[in-house]
Amino acid sequence: MEFLVRFETNLPDTMPVAERNRLKGLERDRAQQLRSEGTLLRLWRVPGRRAVIGLWDTADATHLHDALASLPAFPWTDVTVEALATHPQEQR
Amino acid sequence: MEFLVRFETNLPDTMPVAERNRLKGLERDRAQQLRSEGTLLRLWRVPGRRAVIGLWDTADATHLHDALASLPAFPWTDVTVEALATHPQEQR
Amino acid sequence: MEFLVRFETNLPDTMPVAERNRLKGLERDRAQQLRSEGTLLRLWRVPGRRAVIGLWDTADATHLHDALASLPAFPWTDVTVEALATHPQEQR
Amino acid sequence: MEFLVRFETNLPDTMPVAERNRLKGLERDRAQQLRSEGTLLRLWRVPGRRAVIGLWDTADATHLHDALASLPAFPWTDVTVEALATHPQEQR
Amino acid sequence: MEFLVRFETNLPDTMPVAERNRLKGLERDRAQQLRSEGTLLRLWRVPGRRAVIGLWDTADATHLHDALASLPAFPWTDVTVEALATHPQEQR
Amino acid sequence: MEFLVRFETNLPDTMPVAERNRLKGLERDRAQQLRSEGTLLRLWRVPGRRAVIGLWDTADATHLHDALASLPAFPWTDVTVEALATHPQEQR
Amino acid sequence: MEFLVRFETNLPDTMPVAERNRLKGLERDRAQQLRSEGTLLRLWRVPGRRAVIGLWDTADATHLHDALASLPAFPWTDVTVEALATHPQEQR
Amino acid sequence: MEFLVRFETNLPDTMPVAERNRLKGLERDRAQQLRSEGTLLRLWRVPGRRAVIGLWDTADATHLHDALASLPAFPWTDVTVEALATHPQEQR
Amino acid sequence: MEFLVRFETNLPDTMPVAERNRLKGLERDRAQQLRSEGTLLRLWRVPGRRAVIGLWDTADATHLHDALASLPAFPWTDVTVEALATHPQEQR
Amino acid sequence: MEFLVRFETNLPDTMPVAERNRLKGLERDRAQQLRSEGTLLRLWRVPGRRAVIGLWDTADATHLHDALASLPAFPWTDVTVEALATHPQEQR
Repeated sequence: MEFLVRFETNLPDTMPVAERNRLKGLERDRAQQLRSEGTLLRLWRVPGRRAVIGLWDTADATHLHDALASLPAFPWTDVTVEALATHPQEQR
Repeated sequence: MEFLVRFETNLPDTMPVAERNRLKGLERDRAQQLRSEGTLLRLWRVPGRRAVIGLWDTADATHLHDALASLPAFPWTDVTVEALATHPQEQR
Repeated sequence: MEFLVRFETNLPDTMPVAERNRLKGLERDRAQQLRSEGTLLRLWRVPGRRAVIGLWDTADATHLHDALASLPAFPWTDVTVEALATHPQEQR
Repeated sequence: MEFLVRFETNLPDTMPVAERNRLKGLERDRAQQLRSEGTLLRLWRVPGRRAVIGLWDTADATHLHDALASLPAFPWTDVTVEALATHPQEQR
Repeated sequence: MEFLVRFETNLPDTMPVAERNRLKGLERDRAQQLRSEGTLLRLWRVPGRRAVIGLWDTADATHLHDALASLPAFPWTDVTVEALATHPQEQR
Repeated sequence: MEFLVRFETNLPDTMPVAERNRLKGLERDRAQQLRSEGTLLRLWRVPGRRAVIGLWDTADATHLHDALASLPAFPWTDVTVEALATHPQEQR
Repeated sequence: MEFLVRFETNLPDTMPVAERNRLKGLERDRAQQLRSEGTLLRLWRVPGRRAVIGLWDTADATHLHDALASLPAFPWTDVTVEALATHPQEQR
Repeated sequence: MEFLVRFETNLPDTMPVAERNRLKGLERDRAQQLRSEGTLLRLWRVPGRRAVIGLWDTADATHLHDALASLPAFPWTDVTVEALATHPQEQR
Repeated sequence: MEFLVRFETNLPDTMPVAERNRLKGLERDRAQQLRSEGTLLRLWRVPGRRAVIGLWDTADATHLHDALASLPAFPWTDVTVEALATHPQEQR
Repeated sequence: MEFLVRFETNLPDTMPVAERNRLKGLERDRAQQLRSEGTLLRLWRVPGRRAVIGLWDTADATHLHDALASLPAFPWTDVTVEALATHPQEQR
């Protein structure tokens, strides 16, 4: 089942630059894994913000939560999830 | 997968009372079927409004849409759907 | 350039059923054309609503407007458009 | 009387991990007690957030407040409560 | 249990004046009954609007809904209900 | 003249417990005085929040401001005030 | 006591032009009376809208409601009222 | 002084096509005049909507209102106006 | 040209009391100057908040910004500005 | 393609004045470069706020993001971007 997921990351001002970059690297690797599993299908940037919109495909919202919570920056992320129904024009 | 679904029904003023009551009867029957299928689990009234909140359980959002669209008053209903993830305390 | 487009269609109550169905057929055909042009990439239903979310790819917002305005039900549609920036992880 | 209760927990960044885990354990135990009393009926996670939606059953809003305030993480929780009326289809 | 209830009444433009006045009279009588039962405690007007805020006392939200639905103008009323918990300073 | 006043108190995390309790005691005493003056008529808790709704009666909004500002926790309180007009059914 | 009052007037499309103009004339006369009584102090237009913001001075919200309800276009007006407290710099 | 003005035009469904087109022609002509006067500087379409955003330059909000009210479709237009201050980087 | 200006001041908790009072004094003096220049016409308190609503008269929004920015507490103030058009009933 | 971009800058209270001024200088220089490239066309101040509205012209939202992210104060800026379609009256 597909979901549209917006997340905005606000790392605390007090976090040292090195830690921020480490976290970014881990995020990229984890996102890569989620792509290879077919869980993360597409990712876009919201222009001008430290926010992204992603198209995710998981069994249900519980598995989606676990996938999102596995992202290293999850504790500093504001997430909204929207469930998507397949459109008749795309039903195989 | 469980969903929390709010719907507010606004039948047009011009609809005759007999038609309204016929529709209400059909709604009740259809809801009964959905309950017996295990699709509609709980239903509450929002006090003071012609609105209800329901706990639904369907394979995914596509099946949920089909179930909601099968309700006779669907064309006059304003619906918002919220996907629910199972809480760890309720994971069997 | 990609856009996320939400549209909710509210045909007037007074529109005869035959006209509604004619319009739906025309919409489906036009959407099919837009897909074949690579303008409309994906389409999802918002569960429980007469609303869809689409992923569109056009040269710019002006071309997007023209594509949306070419849909037969456009005069009765409430549309919000969100510009998407390519995410570094998807930049070829 | 049943209530739908949303709560989002935001523990301060400065709280040590050990204290967070201690608090989580206490929350789980207290929630267990509330379930056994029949006060907390169902609990769902809002996918992607440190937020839950719960179905509660208490004598009235005053008892509900006391039950919510008894949760260890209450001082760091943002709560919205919605009163639910029994739907005619569920009136015994 | 006490509730704060806001309601805004929008009678259709097409309703004849005589019917409006008849409805107003019935509303006043019904409100008087609800007061004498101790269900409706206080009523204020929102200045400048055809809206009122009322302090209601009923067993629960289900009984509140039935009391509100018994008001003759209910079909044309937009209602929001807020559950109130007794403040410690007012607990006898 | 009557006002409906909502206030949500957010004491800073850094405030020691002893100071919080001292402040609560002063609040209770001041509220008691305002009740005896007939300025504060009723007080309810918003279930689940550190927020209250009060029914106040003062000469005008200026006197209301002074009464609210006299509450010890005022500097940490988020207040919204709503002017109430007497309902014809309650006009002596 | 002073109030800031916004009102937006939406006369029904079906109202004949002659009736609109008659109503406008009556509004102007009534506003003039309210000015001469010292009830309506200032009036501004919200640029681009059929809406005005007014500074009113009445004994309380009840008298304000009666003054607003005395305006001929009141049945078609959407009003929001904000109570104003005298600023210390303007307290004589 | 410059203003950013959004307007969304909703012509009633009942307006005949011929009248709509006549109105559109008049709008275009009037807009052309406002451009030549230097009152209307730029005009953009909000993609997907019957809405435009314009950059206007008038002596003040009163003159802006008169210019907007001079547009033939003004009675069916929902307008929001935002005052703009000159940025230091653009102060000659 | 007249503007309605709301501002809410939130001085940081860490600011010593002496500095707060110094700032308040400077604000009062600056406001007095703006009054004598005819820039600040009226000032009201929003009851219950550290917020004020002011009626300002400046050549345009650029001069208004400079006047607002000249207030000592400006860096800690949240401001919204609304342009006002002169009402026909007040046009000399 | 043109975009309307709002940004509000909130530098942390803890940032020393010297660093703030350094940053402002860098912002001004970078804005100048963006102007000379034809990327930043117009810039206005939102009166009373540390916020600006800009008219930008870039190939697409991806290039817009990169341009915005190149501004030195970007990490402390809250940005919303609105895609603009060319109005028929301005299509060459």
